[in-house]
Amino acid sequence: MSQFKFTLAATDGRARTGAIDTPRGTIRTPAFMPVGTAATVKALYPEQVRATGADIVLGNTYHLMLRPGAEEIAALGGLHSFMNWPHPILTDSGGFQVMSLSKLRKMTEEGVTFQSHLDGSRHLLSPERSIEIQCLLGSDIQMQLDECTPFPATEAEAKKSMELSLRWAARSKSAFEAQPHRTEGMALFGIVQGSTYEPLRKASAAGLQEIGFDGYSVGGLAVGEGQAEMLRVLDFTTPALPENKPRYLMGVGTPDDLVESVARGIDMFDCVMPTRNGRHGLAFTSRGKVNLKNARHAADKRPLDETSTCPAARDYSRAYLHHLIKSGEMLGSMLVSWINVHYYQSLMAGMRAAIAEQRFAAFVADFKAAQAGGDIEPL
Amino acid sequence: MSQFKFTLAATDGRARTGAIDTPRGTIRTPAFMPVGTAATVKALYPEQVRATGADIVLGNTYHLMLRPGAEEIAALGGLHSFMNWPHPILTDSGGFQVMSLSKLRKMTEEGVTFQSHLDGSRHLLSPERSIEIQCLLGSDIQMQLDECTPFPATEAEAKKSMELSLRWAARSKSAFEAQPHRTEGMALFGIVQGSTYEPLRKASAAGLQEIGFDGYSVGGLAVGEGQAEMLRVLDFTTPALPENKPRYLMGVGTPDDLVESVARGIDMFDCVMPTRNGRHGLAFTSRGKVNLKNARHAADKRPLDETSTCPAARDYSRAYLHHLIKSGEMLGSMLVSWINVHYYQSLMAGMRAAIAEQRFAAFVADFKAAQAGGDIEPL
Ligand SMILES: [Zn+2]
Ligand SMILES: [Zn+2]
Repeated sequence: MSQFKFTLAATDGRARTGAIDTPRGTIRTPAFMPVGTAATVKALYPEQVRATGADIVLGNTYHLMLRPGAEEIAALGGLHSFMNWPHPILTDSGGFQVMSLSKLRKMTEEGVTFQSHLDGSRHLLSPERSIEIQCLLGSDIQMQLDECTPFPATEAEAKKSMELSLRWAARSKSAFEAQPHRTEGMALFGIVQGSTYEPLRKASAAGLQEIGFDGYSVGGLAVGEGQAEMLRVLDFTTPALPENKPRYLMGVGTPDDLVESVARGIDMFDCVMPTRNGRHGLAFTSRGKVNLKNARHAADKRPLDETSTCPAARDYSRAYLHHLIKSGEMLGSMLVSWINVHYYQSLMAGMRAAIAEQRFAAFVADFKAAQAGGDIEPL
Repeated sequence: MSQFKFTLAATDGRARTGAIDTPRGTIRTPAFMPVGTAATVKALYPEQVRATGADIVLGNTYHLMLRPGAEEIAALGGLHSFMNWPHPILTDSGGFQVMSLSKLRKMTEEGVTFQSHLDGSRHLLSPERSIEIQCLLGSDIQMQLDECTPFPATEAEAKKSMELSLRWAARSKSAFEAQPHRTEGMALFGIVQGSTYEPLRKASAAGLQEIGFDGYSVGGLAVGEGQAEMLRVLDFTTPALPENKPRYLMGVGTPDDLVESVARGIDMFDCVMPTRNGRHGLAFTSRGKVNLKNARHAADKRPLDETSTCPAARDYSRAYLHHLIKSGEMLGSMLVSWINVHYYQSLMAGMRAAIAEQRFAAFVADFKAAQAGGDIEPL
């Protein structure tokens, strides 16, 4: 129980279902991790997140290192206790958000120096510091620092970037093994880069396996390349990864992205989409996306989705959800975020059951037909 | 069960405890009504509001008539169904907020014409229209339209204003009795005005009783006169009201205001303070107000109030609440609003029990000592 362990229970085509055991609990795969950027899955109570079926949430190292700070969270007993989430937590390395959010970034072989977007304070994020922060937070699954190769990139640019990430992978592994704040059962994942180039992705995957990680993330996707291109990259990337380790597609995605990626052997996902869209009144349902801001809902007494087991989708009218969102009421964000996180978890549960029962292809066909069918007719 | 009925169970000095039976349920008094301005008690799920012990919430006629509209809510099945709150609802008349929020107001004997602060649309609020709106909403306890006399006012100004409110009280009563949307068990309250002048308050109370109402509100207080002056007005106003009808002090107040007003025979209260302060990180506790934005909480692992039965006050550290509020995270508003609504309901429950057991004076003394004692020492 104090070890990190991945067990495959069943496969159906290239889709896989199984479980990751960690000291803080089991993560059923394929798994979707709601994003808890600043130590909170926005607009949801932690018990609610758990009740939707989430086994694990993601925390953002960049945000947490700046506010309240890694040493500060460690002194408070770690991230789990801080955010009242006793279940597994995965943290990213901070690298992605340093590049997208911070000011005055300077990248060297050593790492990235930057200024906080909050108060202008100067920080260094190196592979070693990233691991130290993640261990201070008490993260169960940690990510190596990498460079998320921008899209598009020439093959030469992508190669240079991927090789830097590989060198940082090796330093991350050494730092992880030497980290005094590390506790038993913590896991470290390497991140495959290489943009859209098959030889680079394969070289990255091979290089990471030589170093040896507890799991393998696929990075540098969902950065503007489009779904078709993303899936083409997965088509040659997941076969280059070991069968017996979890595979995590970072920052993805729409419900359809999840289904297509599970079909290509991905085990773990995270995305801000359910909560970010929820705050803006955009709901995910079995019949596709529903924009609750739309005037068609203003006089509609029907619930958003009477087939849902989420109270927010069933116990409130579309008219009320529309009213709350239009009025800028917090309860609107709370209810639609809940609906979305719940929908994502239901989708993952559906996929897990379908794979276990060898009917994943039929599940995908049903899913696509329902999504394409669209929302119920207006009144 | 289909009648509106007030039953006094016990008195202790001038403090009273009892129950108001309505077709939608019983309201234990003294009662505090959380404010659900736009058909939502801000940042709380309705089930949560109920679980704090609230028997009734308040809805704002001004907000609801403008968005989504009274006829629109009626077509959707009424306010209770709309906001998923099957328990009693009290609505104000809309008059107070027309004067504080709308544009281009024009007051005549007939009523108030005004422009919506939302879209500039023109509306008339008369005693008759206010009652029609409240009946369309399906409100269990309705208020007459009145003029909330500004403070300060000369005795002549206050008399003129109070007499207008009395004429509107009579029209409200007639309109209520004739209203086709009224259903059995709905109640109408008159509103005592007269500013800080004893003869005017007494004349107002007498005039209203001549018309006859199901309950009596005390209006025109908590408008800048200060607590001492407010309590002085209550000292001569509540004795002028009938024993066998509920007395509602509108828009009040702090925990100390509630205790002092119950001591003067008030049965019902509403105030935005618990939710508005909650959104800004200001918590009400048995030890007084705690500003969670204060840096003293940043490294404090202790819960806000370990004696509270509210999960939000007990299961999260002060450091976490501080972090959420400083970070502008919605969960911060959700947790502190919950803490505050819960604290207000606990305070009312405490007063009800103390009055029933004839130990209200001791309760007040303990309450004041605990509030004066202040928050626990910083770490
Ligand atoms: Zn995403
Ligand atoms: Zn108030």
